[in-house]
Amino acid sequence: MTSHLIGLIGSGIGPSLSPALHEREADLHGLRYLYRIIDIGAPEPGAQAAPAPAPGADADSVGDLLRWARRLGFTGLNITHPCKQTVIPHLDDLSPDAATLGAVNTVTFDGGRLIGHNTDWTGFALSFVRGLPHAATDRVVQLGAGGAGAAVAHALLTLGTGRLTIADAQPERAEGLAAELERRFGPGRAGTVPLGALGAELAGADGLVHATPTGMAAHPGLPLPADHLHPGLWVADIVYRPLETALLRSAREIGCRTLDGGGMVVHQAAHAFRLFTGIEPDAGRMLAHLADLVAV
Amino acid sequence: MTSHLIGLIGSGIGPSLSPALHEREADLHGLRYLYRIIDIGAPEPGAQAAPAPAPGADADSVGDLLRWARRLGFTGLNITHPCKQTVIPHLDDLSPDAATLGAVNTVTFDGGRLIGHNTDWTGFALSFVRGLPHAATDRVVQLGAGGAGAAVAHALLTLGTGRLTIADAQPERAEGLAAELERRFGPGRAGTVPLGALGAELAGADGLVHATPTGMAAHPGLPLPADHLHPGLWVADIVYRPLETALLRSAREIGCRTLDGGGMVVHQAAHAFRLFTGIEPDAGRMLAHLADLVAV
Repeated sequence: MTSHLIGLIGSGIGPSLSPALHEREADLHGLRYLYRIIDIGAPEPGAQAAPAPAPGADADSVGDLLRWARRLGFTGLNITHPCKQTVIPHLDDLSPDAATLGAVNTVTFDGGRLIGHNTDWTGFALSFVRGLPHAATDRVVQLGAGGAGAAVAHALLTLGTGRLTIADAQPERAEGLAAELERRFGPGRAGTVPLGALGAELAGADGLVHATPTGMAAHPGLPLPADHLHPGLWVADIVYRPLETALLRSAREIGCRTLDGGGMVVHQAAHAFRLFTGIEPDAGRMLAHLADLVAV
Repeated sequence: MTSHLIGLIGSGIGPSLSPALHEREADLHGLRYLYRIIDIGAPEPGAQAAPAPAPGADADSVGDLLRWARRLGFTGLNITHPCKQTVIPHLDDLSPDAATLGAVNTVTFDGGRLIGHNTDWTGFALSFVRGLPHAATDRVVQLGAGGAGAAVAHALLTLGTGRLTIADAQPERAEGLAAELERRFGPGRAGTVPLGALGAELAGADGLVHATPTGMAAHPGLPLPADHLHPGLWVADIVYRPLETALLRSAREIGCRTLDGGGMVVHQAAHAFRLFTGIEPDAGRMLAHLADLVAV
């Protein structure tokens, strides 16, 4: 009987919901499926930036983990912070998406070859299309230009956003991402805005995507002044623990359409599940599972 | 939820029944349990002795496999030929039985410490006690002094066999095992007999244990002349593919009580399962599974 052994490589990932999400869905398909956490070391407490190098966190060790996981019978791996870029030199090939993004969150062992995929951007794209159908996207503002932000921005422009304006507490990070997006999607499709001018930018925008950790249990609060919101905006958050963040609550109170972060994580996992098993999971059922899991 | 990830390290083990035996039993306990084959290279076709060194077959690589299996979230490992001895220098501790036998077929990761166990001898002991209750064991003859033979001999003398006489196509192997058994169990408890004198030895014996590969599908036939058998003998075989060997068929035809090799493999697996999970498996149910599996 075919069975599936999956691992997640990353830092500080003990509380990940991926094992429960994948395994519960696999059970309902009658699959033998086991999802292991392979934590390369906890990040520094309260660290915002990359964690201090931990044993196993260097690029070589990620390569060793990959090779030994394949040797010991793993079906494939999910990859998360801080390894989404460092894993790339250890792979035999990349999907076109992963190559474009320069980031890998899923590795399959295809006849002995290590292939990197990116299901983060497809996860956000599917979540957005299903969760905010017919949303206007002439002008979208994105707060946060880190790894998740890069995947979200790629999804928005792929889906046809006219112009994406990016703000980040590190302005050079926003500028770097915008420049890369313009190279990829064409001049004028992306730009930046200082945090101080965010209110004015949002006044003329169709939607706001939030892609920073603010609103998570460990980083409570609003990522921007509430008076920057207006009823003409849709508001999407990528935070999913909790599903209802302070930002989404404020937005709904004034009548905005909203999209929580659950869809991105579920569709990201569902796409990886399909790559690992060849079987189409029930994403709606996985969304319900996620809501149960984060409600605990 | 606790889940269990087990591996089997050995050479030429692709056809092993262990994954099916363990996983089916775990399913019936509602456990998430996955059993992976980790083959270090096929033995030479038709090889009787140890296989040619294959990549990964040396002692160092077995140590690497152990360490990486622990790192990647394995619960424990079964170990088989040709690694039952070479694995020992890589372990932190041995159960008293494994230390006495100098052979390990099960490794548990106990709070990060690698502990070696031997469930081969307990497997044969339980099979013998349950399958041939009240068998006389004043004088027992054993054919075969390899790794399995060493475990079987240890079980027989532990269970009270008065004198065990060992024959092997390599007389020095029989002599080495007998000497070791006498050191362990006392003078007079073990000895050897040349193959040419096996008939005379069996004439005065209570039972015969067969511990060579003869009778397996790849090595058909009888391991000794049929006229060496007599109705006063019980006959135990450790071959289990098929369960009914030519030896057992001949023995039953003349009225001997017999014990097939299924009990040893099942009780060996059941004991390992208990070490891995802390749960007592249903060995009777596993015997029925094994009979299904080898009947295919």
